[in-house]
Amino acid sequence: MSTPPVAIIMGSQSDWPTMKHAADILDELGIAYDARIVSAHRTPDRMYEFAKGAKAEGFKVIIAGAGGAAHLPGMTAALTPLPVFGVPVQSRALSGEDSLLSIVQMPAGIPVGTLAIGNAGASNAALLAAAVLALSDDALAEKLDAWRAARTAAVAEKPSNEG
Amino acid sequence: MSTPPVAIIMGSQSDWPTMKHAADILDELGIAYDARIVSAHRTPDRMYEFAKGAKAEGFKVIIAGAGGAAHLPGMTAALTPLPVFGVPVQSRALSGEDSLLSIVQMPAGIPVGTLAIGNAGASNAALLAAAVLALSDDALAEKLDAWRAARTAAVAEKPSNEG
Amino acid sequence: MSTPPVAIIMGSQSDWPTMKHAADILDELGIAYDARIVSAHRTPDRMYEFAKGAKAEGFKVIIAGAGGAAHLPGMTAALTPLPVFGVPVQSRALSGEDSLLSIVQMPAGIPVGTLAIGNAGASNAALLAAAVLALSDDALAEKLDAWRAARTAAVAEKPSNEG
Amino acid sequence: MSTPPVAIIMGSQSDWPTMKHAADILDELGIAYDARIVSAHRTPDRMYEFAKGAKAEGFKVIIAGAGGAAHLPGMTAALTPLPVFGVPVQSRALSGEDSLLSIVQMPAGIPVGTLAIGNAGASNAALLAAAVLALSDDALAEKLDAWRAARTAAVAEKPSNEG
Amino acid sequence: MSTPPVAIIMGSQSDWPTMKHAADILDELGIAYDARIVSAHRTPDRMYEFAKGAKAEGFKVIIAGAGGAAHLPGMTAALTPLPVFGVPVQSRALSGEDSLLSIVQMPAGIPVGTLAIGNAGASNAALLAAAVLALSDDALAEKLDAWRAARTAAVAEKPSNEG
Amino acid sequence: MSTPPVAIIMGSQSDWPTMKHAADILDELGIAYDARIVSAHRTPDRMYEFAKGAKAEGFKVIIAGAGGAAHLPGMTAALTPLPVFGVPVQSRALSGEDSLLSIVQMPAGIPVGTLAIGNAGASNAALLAAAVLALSDDALAEKLDAWRAARTAAVAEKPSNEG
Amino acid sequence: MSTPPVAIIMGSQSDWPTMKHAADILDELGIAYDARIVSAHRTPDRMYEFAKGAKAEGFKVIIAGAGGAAHLPGMTAALTPLPVFGVPVQSRALSGEDSLLSIVQMPAGIPVGTLAIGNAGASNAALLAAAVLALSDDALAEKLDAWRAARTAAVAEKPSNEG
Amino acid sequence: MSTPPVAIIMGSQSDWPTMKHAADILDELGIAYDARIVSAHRTPDRMYEFAKGAKAEGFKVIIAGAGGAAHLPGMTAALTPLPVFGVPVQSRALSGEDSLLSIVQMPAGIPVGTLAIGNAGASNAALLAAAVLALSDDALAEKLDAWRAARTAAVAEKPSNEG
Repeated sequence: MSTPPVAIIMGSQSDWPTMKHAADILDELGIAYDARIVSAHRTPDRMYEFAKGAKAEGFKVIIAGAGGAAHLPGMTAALTPLPVFGVPVQSRALSGEDSLLSIVQMPAGIPVGTLAIGNAGASNAALLAAAVLALSDDALAEKLDAWRAARTAAVAEKPSNEG
Repeated sequence: MSTPPVAIIMGSQSDWPTMKHAADILDELGIAYDARIVSAHRTPDRMYEFAKGAKAEGFKVIIAGAGGAAHLPGMTAALTPLPVFGVPVQSRALSGEDSLLSIVQMPAGIPVGTLAIGNAGASNAALLAAAVLALSDDALAEKLDAWRAARTAAVAEKPSNEG
Repeated sequence: MSTPPVAIIMGSQSDWPTMKHAADILDELGIAYDARIVSAHRTPDRMYEFAKGAKAEGFKVIIAGAGGAAHLPGMTAALTPLPVFGVPVQSRALSGEDSLLSIVQMPAGIPVGTLAIGNAGASNAALLAAAVLALSDDALAEKLDAWRAARTAAVAEKPSNEG
Repeated sequence: MSTPPVAIIMGSQSDWPTMKHAADILDELGIAYDARIVSAHRTPDRMYEFAKGAKAEGFKVIIAGAGGAAHLPGMTAALTPLPVFGVPVQSRALSGEDSLLSIVQMPAGIPVGTLAIGNAGASNAALLAAAVLALSDDALAEKLDAWRAARTAAVAEKPSNEG
Repeated sequence: MSTPPVAIIMGSQSDWPTMKHAADILDELGIAYDARIVSAHRTPDRMYEFAKGAKAEGFKVIIAGAGGAAHLPGMTAALTPLPVFGVPVQSRALSGEDSLLSIVQMPAGIPVGTLAIGNAGASNAALLAAAVLALSDDALAEKLDAWRAARTAAVAEKPSNEG
Repeated sequence: MSTPPVAIIMGSQSDWPTMKHAADILDELGIAYDARIVSAHRTPDRMYEFAKGAKAEGFKVIIAGAGGAAHLPGMTAALTPLPVFGVPVQSRALSGEDSLLSIVQMPAGIPVGTLAIGNAGASNAALLAAAVLALSDDALAEKLDAWRAARTAAVAEKPSNEG
Repeated sequence: MSTPPVAIIMGSQSDWPTMKHAADILDELGIAYDARIVSAHRTPDRMYEFAKGAKAEGFKVIIAGAGGAAHLPGMTAALTPLPVFGVPVQSRALSGEDSLLSIVQMPAGIPVGTLAIGNAGASNAALLAAAVLALSDDALAEKLDAWRAARTAAVAEKPSNEG
Repeated sequence: MSTPPVAIIMGSQSDWPTMKHAADILDELGIAYDARIVSAHRTPDRMYEFAKGAKAEGFKVIIAGAGGAAHLPGMTAALTPLPVFGVPVQSRALSGEDSLLSIVQMPAGIPVGTLAIGNAGASNAALLAAAVLALSDDALAEKLDAWRAARTAAVAEKPSNEG
């Protein structure tokens, strides 16, 4: 079986309820992915091996989620030439502000395309990965257009008190 | 003349000293780009036209920089299926914290891959665009690897008091 | 039937529990309004059409509520000469600080009169709209004065442990 | 001589370099105004008198700028039924974040339409006042449209290294 | 009946659960007080009258609590020569950070001695008022010393899992 | 020579340019004071001795300024029954936000009446000390009233471009 | 019985649910400790005595937890030459941001090695103490290595929906 | 030549003006150190090698400084059992708040003892390293005591206007 184009990695099991939103979008768009726990801090060797080998393994895009002093997205980006999209997981004390700054404020040279804190960010990391893959996949581009059009069409004209 | 793969757009002339760092990296990597002023607030019609037509025009990736209540990256992302990378320009009173939050905290459905505040973010938007384009351009992938390797090699072993 | 003087627009159904506080105040003051969902990100064309046509349609004042990277108030203001009052809806991770900065930190040229985060801000957007309309409507001015006087009169002298 | 439609008030002489941006816009649009120093803290009697009498005096809109624990806009709004637009002046230690929160976070019942921190906010308070006055002044509405169109036209297509 | 030495004022009934902690401490120390609702925004005339007359009425110290754009402590301080101690009530969206900055960041000339956000701040406003009154009341000074000594004595040596 | 009523203490010589503003106000009001360097961190023994003995020494009010992790005001308050007013000195990296929170967020039981960050806070600490001392010193009360009246009178009616 | 190498001190009983995480880690690693309540504000003498005597008593490392204006870690560090590790306890209004800044922003001369806000920080203070003690205790170094290896081994490969 | 007990590592040459303050303190105390540039992002292989081998190489304590999305201290701590002390270097846009949160908010399991932002933090990292080394080096303990005593003695009694 071939490597799917997208890897979803996260620092711990506790990030999965957030990161599952990325997986759900990829499922909706029919994009295969591999979801793995890769902790920068508890499994640095696993991270090193994964990130160094990700391109050769066949991945195209990496989605990385982490919270607090969130080093996984940036360290992965330092170890692979693939585009890395980072999702700041909402943290307990600081509501993800720490996660956001730890991911987005990368120094010149090593980019992480950072999405919003929490579930919305995970969904959007998947949509951004899809947009990247669609650049060389017209069928996916059409699916993505349809997905967006359906969402646009689903917006009601008026707010509802039943809402 | 064919459309270059990357568009660099910015809200005003005053964003150019920041966004020029994106242009410089693209120059170093030999990636063609078009740099334009497209203000979400002062030229909304231009923004609509540009963003709606960007894919048909032939662009692949859009880099958008703006400061303060920075709406350009998110609105562009709402109007195009292309991947959009956002650069928060450092603002006067709030040092770019407003720019960052206005760009990164997009709702589920419309992603903007956000980079760091200021010059580093602009450089990294270009590198991320390069990483995306390199997915289907082996020559560029090699150039990017070489660029990164050169940077790695340029890191001195010891700090210098002349530094 | 003529166009009401006030439009209440919001980015999604989930903003309605907040924005309903604006509607309630307008109801109390006998000011007609139209409440619509207009998403800057999911329905940018609807926003463009609405905002470009709002003055011709007959609206006088626009109240716009949104959360997170809240672009609706500022983009509407970029597309209409009418006064726009923005309500930052309380967001999940950052409690509306992102909404506030995305709305209030507009660049010179395109103003959004911004109210407080959440329900109080929605109520106050309606009161500010009323104050604006009352400039050329003496009956409304009297109603507004009476509304304020009643609120003043309702403030108890002493705190109550039953409170 | 009749009362001008706009009052620009500010907490101290040191706010004038900021608030002058409001005056400049009003000058450009040919709107008369009266600029006064009214300190909530040092001259509370003057503030009470001014705000209580502003409507009877003939003012239509009040622009109030203050910094730090900025109470002038909110207190003025508590004392007049006229629309009040607040400008957070950039403060020394906290860069206007204190000014912003002190002005915008008004409780339900007393609105202050708040603009951005600093010069841009002052300019925009004037533009918002103009938009309000233009609701019943077609000539002003035309001037305002022209002002906006000129600004739109002035946006260059390309960034300039001479910029 | 003579005026008690301490006035506890607050912006609304909803501040009482916080401000009651001040009243409780004063009760423990046997210091009389008067608790009143005085809203800077909804009852500015009542505030003006109260603050202007507080010294003549016989008060010695004023404790003022308010939340959000909290103007009551600072405006009271502008209208009376008595010492004013401010309590930032915890607000909904911003957890009292807005209340704190609105109270503490007073300009030179009009001081408000500001305590912590919420219940602890209310308790401490009462203790600070007691410390001030104790400067010319030896019996109170002794009571305050005893109160503090009792609290010191009540600190257990070891943490308890039953705690 | 008798002990002056006010002690001004500060964590280091570098706090003096800020704390001198307190001394200047006390000079203007003719209130004697003693200014000392008492570092909570570098001279904890000196702090203990000073604070434990301050009341017996004859002081009435303590003004304490410190920056960063500013422990001097709170620790002094823990060691004396005298009223302590804290001045957050503006720090280099965090502009005094750290100083402010370290001083104001005291737990229930040990109050520090906290003033604004920086020079204004130092001036106001002196004015608050004066207001406290004036409670039992009618001559000082008159001086303070005159000081305030003079400041009120000094507020110009109109902003000046020469300002 | 000899003094254990680690002292865990905290400002109040309410800090114990957080600080117990430090105790639990020390238990797992077989490191003896003494847990005490030492309040900088309510029991300054106890703090002074404890900290001054801690080295002579035989302690090697001090773990100090506190919340809000958290002065215990820094004051302890000012009174002992032993290494002090500080744990910011999550506070009610500001979620521990005040605790963090009060502990970490120590001036040059008196270090506090600061850990994360809340439970994770308490666990890590214990692990850091263990790392320090392991420098001269090979058996402990092995235990610590084993503890870390076990944690690494416990990280699952894949996220689980049962998680 | 034997390995010195302390390694000072930093992300780039631009961190040296900050980290030199650690080196200076170690020089004053006669503690040998090795200062190296080890970038988590530009030289991840060097970081892995360094951190994995640091203990075997003979180091006892690691001081790691970095700015922005500062991953060096935490990643080093993930790769070595030695105690790691982190110094948040002051960043351009966010003044080191990003650096601080990226370093201090480590998840349970991997501690970084974090010091203050900037120069003071670098000095204190060295003093904390010294305190750790002094646990098994009585001569160093005496030197450290003397260093602290000298600093205490150097604190003037009174602030100086020449200061």
